[in-house]
Amino acid sequence: MKNPSDPAPHHHPDPAFAGIELQDDLEGDTLREECGVFGIFGHPEAAAITALGLHALQHRGQEAAGIVSFDGTRFHSERRLGLVGDTFSRREVIERLPGSLAVGHVRYSTTGATILRNVQPLFAELNAGGFAVGHNGNLTNGLTLRRELVRNGAMMQSTTDTEVILHLVAQSKRGRFIDRFIEALRAIEGAYSLVSMTNKKLVGARDPLGIRPLVLGELDGCPILASETCALDMIGAKYVRDIDPGEIIVFDEHGAESHKPFPPKPPRPCIFEYIYFSRPDSIVGGRSVYEVRKAFGAQLARESHVEVDVVVPVPDSGVPAAVGYSQHSGVPFELGIIRNHYVGRTFIQPTQSVRELGVRMKHSANRVAIEGKRIILIDDSLVRGTTSKKIVRMMRDAGASEVHFRLASPPILYPDYYGIDLPDRGGLLAATHSLEEMREIIGADSLAFLSIDGMYRAMGEPGRDPANPKFSDHCFTGAYPTHLTDQTQTEPQPRQLSLLAEAS
Amino acid sequence: MKNPSDPAPHHHPDPAFAGIELQDDLEGDTLREECGVFGIFGHPEAAAITALGLHALQHRGQEAAGIVSFDGTRFHSERRLGLVGDTFSRREVIERLPGSLAVGHVRYSTTGATILRNVQPLFAELNAGGFAVGHNGNLTNGLTLRRELVRNGAMMQSTTDTEVILHLVAQSKRGRFIDRFIEALRAIEGAYSLVSMTNKKLVGARDPLGIRPLVLGELDGCPILASETCALDMIGAKYVRDIDPGEIIVFDEHGAESHKPFPPKPPRPCIFEYIYFSRPDSIVGGRSVYEVRKAFGAQLARESHVEVDVVVPVPDSGVPAAVGYSQHSGVPFELGIIRNHYVGRTFIQPTQSVRELGVRMKHSANRVAIEGKRIILIDDSLVRGTTSKKIVRMMRDAGASEVHFRLASPPILYPDYYGIDLPDRGGLLAATHSLEEMREIIGADSLAFLSIDGMYRAMGEPGRDPANPKFSDHCFTGAYPTHLTDQTQTEPQPRQLSLLAEAS
Amino acid sequence: MKNPSDPAPHHHPDPAFAGIELQDDLEGDTLREECGVFGIFGHPEAAAITALGLHALQHRGQEAAGIVSFDGTRFHSERRLGLVGDTFSRREVIERLPGSLAVGHVRYSTTGATILRNVQPLFAELNAGGFAVGHNGNLTNGLTLRRELVRNGAMMQSTTDTEVILHLVAQSKRGRFIDRFIEALRAIEGAYSLVSMTNKKLVGARDPLGIRPLVLGELDGCPILASETCALDMIGAKYVRDIDPGEIIVFDEHGAESHKPFPPKPPRPCIFEYIYFSRPDSIVGGRSVYEVRKAFGAQLARESHVEVDVVVPVPDSGVPAAVGYSQHSGVPFELGIIRNHYVGRTFIQPTQSVRELGVRMKHSANRVAIEGKRIILIDDSLVRGTTSKKIVRMMRDAGASEVHFRLASPPILYPDYYGIDLPDRGGLLAATHSLEEMREIIGADSLAFLSIDGMYRAMGEPGRDPANPKFSDHCFTGAYPTHLTDQTQTEPQPRQLSLLAEAS
Amino acid sequence: MKNPSDPAPHHHPDPAFAGIELQDDLEGDTLREECGVFGIFGHPEAAAITALGLHALQHRGQEAAGIVSFDGTRFHSERRLGLVGDTFSRREVIERLPGSLAVGHVRYSTTGATILRNVQPLFAELNAGGFAVGHNGNLTNGLTLRRELVRNGAMMQSTTDTEVILHLVAQSKRGRFIDRFIEALRAIEGAYSLVSMTNKKLVGARDPLGIRPLVLGELDGCPILASETCALDMIGAKYVRDIDPGEIIVFDEHGAESHKPFPPKPPRPCIFEYIYFSRPDSIVGGRSVYEVRKAFGAQLARESHVEVDVVVPVPDSGVPAAVGYSQHSGVPFELGIIRNHYVGRTFIQPTQSVRELGVRMKHSANRVAIEGKRIILIDDSLVRGTTSKKIVRMMRDAGASEVHFRLASPPILYPDYYGIDLPDRGGLLAATHSLEEMREIIGADSLAFLSIDGMYRAMGEPGRDPANPKFSDHCFTGAYPTHLTDQTQTEPQPRQLSLLAEAS
Repeated sequence: MKNPSDPAPHHHPDPAFAGIELQDDLEGDTLREECGVFGIFGHPEAAAITALGLHALQHRGQEAAGIVSFDGTRFHSERRLGLVGDTFSRREVIERLPGSLAVGHVRYSTTGATILRNVQPLFAELNAGGFAVGHNGNLTNGLTLRRELVRNGAMMQSTTDTEVILHLVAQSKRGRFIDRFIEALRAIEGAYSLVSMTNKKLVGARDPLGIRPLVLGELDGCPILASETCALDMIGAKYVRDIDPGEIIVFDEHGAESHKPFPPKPPRPCIFEYIYFSRPDSIVGGRSVYEVRKAFGAQLARESHVEVDVVVPVPDSGVPAAVGYSQHSGVPFELGIIRNHYVGRTFIQPTQSVRELGVRMKHSANRVAIEGKRIILIDDSLVRGTTSKKIVRMMRDAGASEVHFRLASPPILYPDYYGIDLPDRGGLLAATHSLEEMREIIGADSLAFLSIDGMYRAMGEPGRDPANPKFSDHCFTGAYPTHLTDQTQTEPQPRQLSLLAEAS
Repeated sequence: MKNPSDPAPHHHPDPAFAGIELQDDLEGDTLREECGVFGIFGHPEAAAITALGLHALQHRGQEAAGIVSFDGTRFHSERRLGLVGDTFSRREVIERLPGSLAVGHVRYSTTGATILRNVQPLFAELNAGGFAVGHNGNLTNGLTLRRELVRNGAMMQSTTDTEVILHLVAQSKRGRFIDRFIEALRAIEGAYSLVSMTNKKLVGARDPLGIRPLVLGELDGCPILASETCALDMIGAKYVRDIDPGEIIVFDEHGAESHKPFPPKPPRPCIFEYIYFSRPDSIVGGRSVYEVRKAFGAQLARESHVEVDVVVPVPDSGVPAAVGYSQHSGVPFELGIIRNHYVGRTFIQPTQSVRELGVRMKHSANRVAIEGKRIILIDDSLVRGTTSKKIVRMMRDAGASEVHFRLASPPILYPDYYGIDLPDRGGLLAATHSLEEMREIIGADSLAFLSIDGMYRAMGEPGRDPANPKFSDHCFTGAYPTHLTDQTQTEPQPRQLSLLAEAS
Repeated sequence: MKNPSDPAPHHHPDPAFAGIELQDDLEGDTLREECGVFGIFGHPEAAAITALGLHALQHRGQEAAGIVSFDGTRFHSERRLGLVGDTFSRREVIERLPGSLAVGHVRYSTTGATILRNVQPLFAELNAGGFAVGHNGNLTNGLTLRRELVRNGAMMQSTTDTEVILHLVAQSKRGRFIDRFIEALRAIEGAYSLVSMTNKKLVGARDPLGIRPLVLGELDGCPILASETCALDMIGAKYVRDIDPGEIIVFDEHGAESHKPFPPKPPRPCIFEYIYFSRPDSIVGGRSVYEVRKAFGAQLARESHVEVDVVVPVPDSGVPAAVGYSQHSGVPFELGIIRNHYVGRTFIQPTQSVRELGVRMKHSANRVAIEGKRIILIDDSLVRGTTSKKIVRMMRDAGASEVHFRLASPPILYPDYYGIDLPDRGGLLAATHSLEEMREIIGADSLAFLSIDGMYRAMGEPGRDPANPKFSDHCFTGAYPTHLTDQTQTEPQPRQLSLLAEAS
Repeated sequence: MKNPSDPAPHHHPDPAFAGIELQDDLEGDTLREECGVFGIFGHPEAAAITALGLHALQHRGQEAAGIVSFDGTRFHSERRLGLVGDTFSRREVIERLPGSLAVGHVRYSTTGATILRNVQPLFAELNAGGFAVGHNGNLTNGLTLRRELVRNGAMMQSTTDTEVILHLVAQSKRGRFIDRFIEALRAIEGAYSLVSMTNKKLVGARDPLGIRPLVLGELDGCPILASETCALDMIGAKYVRDIDPGEIIVFDEHGAESHKPFPPKPPRPCIFEYIYFSRPDSIVGGRSVYEVRKAFGAQLARESHVEVDVVVPVPDSGVPAAVGYSQHSGVPFELGIIRNHYVGRTFIQPTQSVRELGVRMKHSANRVAIEGKRIILIDDSLVRGTTSKKIVRMMRDAGASEVHFRLASPPILYPDYYGIDLPDRGGLLAATHSLEEMREIIGADSLAFLSIDGMYRAMGEPGRDPANPKFSDHCFTGAYPTHLTDQTQTEPQPRQLSLLAEAS
């Protein structure tokens, strides 16, 4: 499956962008994306530290990045397509972001070209002053709210649901900023971890169920907000605590202030942070991602082991589970697939004789580790199955005598509406095929998924309690944790907003 | 003075813009600029023709250009920094602008870096559908309206007053588009020629006094709107008529419809279109710009001739007046100053020994035409006087025995608020010095301006009627044709919007 | 004809060049070009001054520019496509060219894409140290020498004949640099003005007939070499003298040294420098280019005047001759054609209805000055006649009642082999048509060229002496001043060098 | 140590290169580099396949890449800075390289900016026709030959020793291409694997000792030359055999022809291909690189095991050895260090409080796998020791109770002169310190290197035979396999060629 830790799509500037030009595709791209956020208050090198934090969060979004800073007088913003290490590492860029207060964002766009209009943090002039916000997550009533706002004269510049939040804050009639912000949050529904700033405050917010992660750290006495602890480690900051689900935390020169305006509910953090989003060295919700993945592998060994000669991970996402599987089963761990880290654009593929190039661009068989062996292949999850099929064939071409495929997560049966880019049900292999059909399509000698209860047990739970599931696991179970207002609207969804007929 | 027909500031891409990056200076640039607009309805090659039309209007704005098209389903927008001939001449750019309806804009930014957020046409998703607008002129209540809109929750993305018009249309509660548009125009005050479009209509509008120009043309039966007739000539289109002051004209598949929602007033077109804005081959308000400029020169000869050997224009803006002067006075016309057309960025100036380079970059003395001669130098107008001073010195260095400076317009005493970039009164040489003081500063043997009545007479009028001046001539007379709401507000002007204190 | 003073072809970077990439077309472009050269010795800001000098010489070559400097220890080189004002005006570029010794070059490529391999000054490591050279002109035995050099193992990197000179210097067995340089010059034939440098010397050289111009100037005691005096004026340098035909001048810390290794011959400077190459404010061979052009116009009036209402120049190249014509004839000078200075790339031309756009991109009729009038149109010269035809039609479309076309030079009957880009005889209108045929093709009411004797007389000569013509005027007379070795070779010309069969 | 499998230094275009400009640093960069080569004969999609092959060889050079093709009539060349996947994946680039014969090269420059002049394949017009060559290796008499060539009038354009080979071929007086090529090879000394082409032939050559690798493959009947077998796997080609040391192989339309012009010697392939250069899935000299590295790890466990809790590789280069160590010792393998694959440029490092960022940019501790544990860290080799020191500290900061450092190669005591970028002896930690001093500097609880005999035994040899060492292992032993002519010259080495005094 698409692996967020890919160094991949370097997304080098398209030549069409060279020179100074901005192509506005007013039709826009999709509204959903996975992202990472970062913010720091009171540090003299706020932007440089934010750039480093975003670099550590790069696996959460490789399409574009942005930083907004405030220097005591003015706001400054830099938003760029490409990797943080390419676009925010130069001194002159950082020098254009003076000030001790900064927020940043990395973005992964699921389809089409990422356009600069959509790159966050978004910024707007409100009556009360400048306001910037970066958002990880997805609103489930974003389109509904957008329609209402536009009907009332709001002008939308981006196609992100983040802009909806900006407009809600702008239109609030409350006096204090915090009251306007809370009023906006009360209107929205879905998943969000927000890092925002005014000319005086750094503000973090996490949705009432805590679907998306957000942690609090500290460096030299300055508060830091970040999507994952690995961003704190990068800059040598201390981890303080996770922001609570439903918590709004405000930092200014007078210190910190925490608001909890929502009625308390049992948290439901997204299980996919453990399966593949977060970096293995991050601690999410108090659990080591690496240890959880190893435990998934060990649980897989418990549930569906067969006798083989070697355990081979699909790199890099399957490695921790394969280590866990190998340790639990005693079967040797071998690098049977070598990863090519220099993956750039898609190459033109010579059509005549070169088959299966797509997968070879990124992975190649390490024949000596495979030839004549019975192998267990371990990957983190299965979406469409096309890559899995190619990898199994690559293993057979390299001489594997048996190929057993194991997934360190349950079958994905339902789409996500909270910021994960998954195909519709029709595109999910497990949603449309039986286990045996899938095995046949993929071409494996056997195929097994981690069970749902096994997944919970590997997390230290007794199993899944349907009455009170501890995680947002709707992709496996269909149990969506919030209303899906946009999905249940009878009104047709205006995905291409400009197609609306003119009123006159 | 700054001469809009300069090929100059090519404004080639700053290296900081190379690669894909967009520097947002949230503080923004000034709100005023001179511009050119163009629009066409129903032509299969709408964008290509718009690009050509904008090329012909390039002298009205060299900083940036934009085109929005509608292809029957979607809007497309391309906005770029740089010259039209560089940025909109390639096939692939035009191919990204399909459709038979298009509007375009060229922009001249008076200070700071032009930023893409401000490049027009601006586009927004209104409740009724997409709406694009390009604006030539400047509102005199733009800041006041902006403040009210922001107070009511509007989010501004650009620093242009054009965006104020968009918001007014968006917030109108009227049903039909045209009613919403008229409601917006009723709220604004100042100078504007607008070319706008919806997914069905091309709409032109000119302010009630007709301060900025707008003409109607026709090509293959398709209506065209343009700032000047030279844009019609470029594409081989027929001139139909000027859009009337206060007229709103709408083209759609049913034909044309004209609206005149304002009470009629005597027109007051801007006299500066004749003095230096419009191209000499344009016909503005029924008058040939070239002939008017020659008549200014002839009138100068009538008013302030002295005995000299040659008449030398400051190229290129002073050439027509010099031709007129020479023909009327019989003094030979000579190219005593050679213009360098390859003016790019400002060069680094070697500091040690090379003086006066600024003016030499663009102009050089043609010594053989000047040496030992008494000359009359003719320029179109005088603003700060710094360039005039350098040119006079250049003439003396080249051996002129006498240098008499003549200006083909009256002394500029007052700033403009309608889209012309002029310094404050303190920066206007004529506003702060006597004629003799000016002569001494410039270093000329004599100095004379065209008289105000002479200017009117050269236009075919009997002279200026203070009770009913035929032109907007406030820069010479202080007689502003509209209210100056933003100027007379007691409330401090929020030029740097983000500096506003936060309410909480 | 193609007018070298066009600000035009901005030649903005092709997107294919964006990012770091260099397309090597090994087949190469043509070997001939018009160019400008500049050099300075001993000035602490040598590169900055060279950039300014090249800017003043920009009309001699707009495709590319280069500067090489020496800082006492190392050579530095910057070569770029585009205008000097765009590519060499930034501080960081100049700072990459430290040192007090520099040479520069601007280049106009006649066909195909200019490629960086061919941009001058060329540089090479010789046994004696680094050596850089910039060349204006064209060798008439360049291909012959190239073939011999390659046969003896020389490796060519560019397709310029300048590289031939480098190899000749490299292969000389003489000891002193100046002896090697002279040995190389003895081997070459044709037109050349060279500006070259070693790590100790600035060296200028002009071919024995002085076909291409080269002048000596002085700034703060530092010697300067430049193609035209306008480059000296730009930087405030003093004109000292023209470099003599056949002179080699060497500047080093010990002063200047002049060598004249060739037997003396009567000079034959190229007449086209007066007709259109040099800038009007330059003094070439002791004559003011502006005055010569005015004299051409006056002579035209003497030779072929008809009764008309106005004299109209084809701008900008025809302006001085039109001024001269008007002054001599008393017919009023009018700007009947307006030049658009913002010419960029060639636009995509909408095919359906827009005709004659090519010429309108650059010129437009100023109807008011033409309508109902009998006009004399004056251009500098006539090559293919295609533009002239379009301009005559444009004048008629604008209402001219009669159009009389006058050329301020004689009919061009022969190609040039000394650096001027002209078509073969088949492409020269005058070489293949009678005067009456040409008049008909162009569509003028009458057509006349300056006579050859008239041209000489306007230069202050008694007429052309066939036994001793004072100028290189072979394009009009066929009297080539040197051997044309490459043209008379029986061996086929290897224009595409890589097509040669492999020896094995 | 610098790990060639780093996806790393993306080396995105420096903004200074944006637009069309080429900075020539005439002083040049170092002459030595590691590289990869590829060539194919007779395939209709030669350039596309070459691009894919180079992509698979990207770990051998990330600075720049080039491809030359021949289309039956002309040669075409594209050379670019950056990764193959970024620069050669677009259709338009490949389409500029038509033809069925192509050679390619990837380059790693050891110091300074890679400049386009040095990017290979180099191409030259010889008397016999075009000739292109790509080179992996380094000549040990390159500077000596260069000096002789320049003394005889050769002009050098690059600073590579590859150009020396071109000149030797150009200057040979032999008739047939192959004789000229062999004559050139007889003159050179050192390490080289060459892939070259004329307009008729693809030619491969390997130095007499086979220091650098070169293999022969086949795709659809077309011969392929490549540095490693992984390039064959990428395109689905069949491995045929290794090119023999001292073999020159020529492919043309008549088939293959093998030449062995050198007296036979025992091969001495470079041991570093196994230690870190080649990709783990390549088969080099008949041995699996992955298996050799695992055997190094197992041998380490045999030689210097201590009791610990976990084995932790320094990713990615230490992973195979760590797997081998873990399997042999039974100590669990854990990902105690997480690699950040998104390494771009070097970031600006905030100076105040953020320490040790350099190493964190690329590696971060996975605390949960380390805390409270005794660990063995395994890396491939040790050069300066600076990274090792930082990683040991990182492990201690993450809570490791003991850190034992093991290197899967012997101590590096001598520099390389055959294409590996190593510091001088003074910069090699092992050359200047005792084992105990190194342990202390690095901060480990114990430190051990693989023994030289152990290294040979892991390769299946009985140990190292000093009389007949099977590999080029001079970095460990000082036993250089060839003369080092450039090093032993008494004449001073002209590293900065342009510094030579001028002869006059």
